[in-house]
Amino acid sequence: MKRFALAVHGGAGPDSNHIKENMDGYKQGLEDALNAGYAILEKGGSAVDAVEAAVNSMENNPLFNAGRGGALNEKAESQMCASIADGKRHKFGAVAIVKNVKNPVSLAKAVMEKTGHIYLGGPGALSFAQEIKAPLEPDAYFITEHQYESYAEAHEKKSKNPQQAAKEQVESRMHGTVGAVALDSHGNLAAATSTGGTEHEKEGRIGDSSMVGVGTYANNDTCAISTTGDGEYAIKHTAAFHISAIMEYKGLSLPDAIQFFMDEKFKGEKGDIGLIAIDRHGQVSFRFKADRMHRGCRTSAGEMMVEIY
Amino acid sequence: MKRFALAVHGGAGPDSNHIKENMDGYKQGLEDALNAGYAILEKGGSAVDAVEAAVNSMENNPLFNAGRGGALNEKAESQMCASIADGKRHKFGAVAIVKNVKNPVSLAKAVMEKTGHIYLGGPGALSFAQEIKAPLEPDAYFITEHQYESYAEAHEKKSKNPQQAAKEQVESRMHGTVGAVALDSHGNLAAATSTGGTEHEKEGRIGDSSMVGVGTYANNDTCAISTTGDGEYAIKHTAAFHISAIMEYKGLSLPDAIQFFMDEKFKGEKGDIGLIAIDRHGQVSFRFKADRMHRGCRTSAGEMMVEIY
Repeated sequence: MKRFALAVHGGAGPDSNHIKENMDGYKQGLEDALNAGYAILEKGGSAVDAVEAAVNSMENNPLFNAGRGGALNEKAESQMCASIADGKRHKFGAVAIVKNVKNPVSLAKAVMEKTGHIYLGGPGALSFAQEIKAPLEPDAYFITEHQYESYAEAHEKKSKNPQQAAKEQVESRMHGTVGAVALDSHGNLAAATSTGGTEHEKEGRIGDSSMVGVGTYANNDTCAISTTGDGEYAIKHTAAFHISAIMEYKGLSLPDAIQFFMDEKFKGEKGDIGLIAIDRHGQVSFRFKADRMHRGCRTSAGEMMVEIY
Repeated sequence: MKRFALAVHGGAGPDSNHIKENMDGYKQGLEDALNAGYAILEKGGSAVDAVEAAVNSMENNPLFNAGRGGALNEKAESQMCASIADGKRHKFGAVAIVKNVKNPVSLAKAVMEKTGHIYLGGPGALSFAQEIKAPLEPDAYFITEHQYESYAEAHEKKSKNPQQAAKEQVESRMHGTVGAVALDSHGNLAAATSTGGTEHEKEGRIGDSSMVGVGTYANNDTCAISTTGDGEYAIKHTAAFHISAIMEYKGLSLPDAIQFFMDEKFKGEKGDIGLIAIDRHGQVSFRFKADRMHRGCRTSAGEMMVEIY
């Protein structure tokens, strides 16, 4: 059987007490996600199904900012974004600012498989979820005490000094995302990303995680990528597709393309960014400009790694 | 004064009796849009303000599929998408599936100028419009008899034979967009795009026109681009940024980059695509793979052109 491999991330950004206090839980969560995706690859399953399973695992885990446990917006609501990319068929699916959907990345996959569209958002995405009987949950399911406390703190700061709070929010905002990339035993690449958004973001803010070519991209000829960090910076640089384009048009390897992107294009940017990527040989790359990026990988060669800093 | 120039499009796609019957109106509409943008460039105004003015002119014109006169979705509602790109500051703004906003591209500009975000959608984008007192209009303002008739025809077909109707819709769907690109007398590039979406699209379908890097892109080092056509194909190829990346990483001129994109990347695709672009020397490129693309340009060298086929 040919080499297969999977990598996951659980977001990049500033460090926090919450992360330190839950270190074991986060590491276990990354391992669970890797195992969920790996179990599919091991049986000869597709990269698309593997990245979906890995991301589902983190969406269902309240520690990660995606699905249950996602960040709350300025109205204390959970609005979620996700996307998925199939590098073999060059097909994509994405959902933005959707509420109540238990697994946004699976809804993104359904958009890819069951509609003539790629990208659905807002109440229309929820209608589609109802139409295909995707699992839904009440608002309360998504809200964790940790995220509510973060919201309340940001809200209080904003009430007292809106300008200062906005500045601090931009400088050190909490952000998180989960994502996965995989090469399956048939030689196909896939990527997926899912997020609860940025803490205290505006109602309706659409994140990079839902944008094909920015948060998620896969192409069997180049690589599969999932990005995280300050989404607005990723959008500005069309991050995921950008790295694929550097490989294709500058003829660089995946690690060199990432290096070039970080050193030449992202240099001087104040925002955080993190990314995981895999090429068609199953070589995994991790890179982040942030205090930490929750990440891990597992390969058919027996490698298994989980790291945070 | 250095050369300045502006180009506009009013969508690419299949021909129709409606277009033939309204030929003079469409040509006048393109000319009005060019004149609105040109008036700003002539006074030394910015490319960003010029593309906004040109797009506003077509958004206000019920003949074009943007703002008033936009296509209706499967629920007979007008849901609009728009984006704007400032090539000098490398800043972007975008709105998706927004209702009741008279000029979606101006709301996208406000997201760029007044928030820490780039991209807002759905009810949250409408809340932001209310917050900044952007001009709003009732649902009835946006609906034209032509678009209602198109909706009713598609709806009837779908009721009778849903699968056949879906197939026909994919094969020959009506789509339209408006867009503009400009180089101002200070040497800065900008692009903007706005759309009412695809006829009878799913509620919540987010179009390429709202996606930075897909429907709209600008970078003073390469070019400014606005795309139109079957949005899903533009998303798949990250169309606007893709052409900029070909210029940057393959070292091609704008016309050669477009040629390469169309011949090598878009070859074999069933979807329609159209694009207008301008480089930092003020050279305008038009390209479309469709029956027609409403388009025009006006430059400080005295050139003025308006074409449909």
